[in-house]
Amino acid sequence: MKIVLLGSGNVATHLAKALKANGEDVLQIYSPNLVNARWLANQLSAEAVDDLSHINQDAELYIISVKDDAIAPVAASLAHVNGLVVHTSGTTDIQVLASHVKQAGVFYPLQTFSKAKDVSFLNIPLCIEATDQTQLSMLRQLAFKLSEKVYELDGQKRKILHLAAVFACNFPNHLYAMANEILQENDLDFDIIRPLIAETADKVMSNLPENVQTGPAIRNDETTMSKHLGMLESKPEMKHIYQTLSDSIKLTLK
Amino acid sequence: MKIVLLGSGNVATHLAKALKANGEDVLQIYSPNLVNARWLANQLSAEAVDDLSHINQDAELYIISVKDDAIAPVAASLAHVNGLVVHTSGTTDIQVLASHVKQAGVFYPLQTFSKAKDVSFLNIPLCIEATDQTQLSMLRQLAFKLSEKVYELDGQKRKILHLAAVFACNFPNHLYAMANEILQENDLDFDIIRPLIAETADKVMSNLPENVQTGPAIRNDETTMSKHLGMLESKPEMKHIYQTLSDSIKLTLK
Repeated sequence: MKIVLLGSGNVATHLAKALKANGEDVLQIYSPNLVNARWLANQLSAEAVDDLSHINQDAELYIISVKDDAIAPVAASLAHVNGLVVHTSGTTDIQVLASHVKQAGVFYPLQTFSKAKDVSFLNIPLCIEATDQTQLSMLRQLAFKLSEKVYELDGQKRKILHLAAVFACNFPNHLYAMANEILQENDLDFDIIRPLIAETADKVMSNLPENVQTGPAIRNDETTMSKHLGMLESKPEMKHIYQTLSDSIKLTLK
Repeated sequence: MKIVLLGSGNVATHLAKALKANGEDVLQIYSPNLVNARWLANQLSAEAVDDLSHINQDAELYIISVKDDAIAPVAASLAHVNGLVVHTSGTTDIQVLASHVKQAGVFYPLQTFSKAKDVSFLNIPLCIEATDQTQLSMLRQLAFKLSEKVYELDGQKRKILHLAAVFACNFPNHLYAMANEILQENDLDFDIIRPLIAETADKVMSNLPENVQTGPAIRNDETTMSKHLGMLESKPEMKHIYQTLSDSIKLTLK
């Protein structure tokens, strides 16, 4: 399929590589920053463009993978293309595209992408949506080429998923960072806690998290919790987070 | 090595099985609840006891793996044994044992254990401590039989580690549970978010978490954050957690 990718960030980069690896024809990479566009385009033997008026008009699929508030202005420049225009955002309504382009859709990969780390798309849930059934069918076929996990979700469910993803990914990662801060200040290496992080995630691969909660709060072990709060006396922000999350865990006690 | 295990909870169960699998001689399992003692002892061909006065006096190692506040009373019953007495607690000082028994030590596996899920001990950090160098050496040898990751840590560092573990394990698991609550209320399956959880943990196996933070807060994407807070209007507790953790992530913005 002839594809134009608008964006060069984490999602765009990983998606572009997956499309290329699956034999799709990525014609162009657009970025307002030509260096970024060239950096990604070179890896894909695609053309780099930094001017929206130079976008190829004959592609079958345009993937807008930019910051949420840049989606509408980029879409506005694609008003005359006949191909399907999708965005990759968890929170942006399909109408933001549909009000500008002829054929609108969504292609949201539910994953955390960092340039530092390769991921296999095969296991990444792809959430798709389109205003037209023919276009949806095309998107479904493309999605199943990349991943075994394809979900057809409306905007409301996609937004719910995006919110849940913040709880399941962004916040836990921040807590890992806090653990590392505690360790480093005491000359302990993050390595020592990596097996615990891996097992905590692995445990919920075959269990529901509410059934495998451990730790002082779920045991209502007030002695340990007050020791921990004492150790955080010089870190009011962390102490507040400890208290807030412990209180919330205690609320789940039957 | 002749070992008596005092306790039959998650840690005791997993530890007992690992000891047995490594050819150690688990003589007895003690629990004040005889059914629990028998349940575990049967799996190990050990003797089940529910009376501390019936503990074998000739073992080389006594492992106390009970709730923190039960450690001292159990240790008191081992005042006359010549073997090494260790506990498996992250937060309890070695002195709680040393004030009761002849030889005291600590054998703290830094992992989250649930009866529902087997774990391999090989990758579990074992944190050891002993008041006597000969006993420490014995503990070190045992630890390296079970795991490749053995750390000799004093009580202060062990307590730091335990605190960090709450941030790296117990709190993230609770956030997974919140994600599941959000999903279930909207007829979405937890399955859809499992690859994200796995990748979030996997990413910090080779990166430091502060370097791979993603999400609306680290982008300072106020539009998305206020959408999310709006979606949590009917859940004040989750809304408070969202706000607290987002504020904390924003503080790390350079």
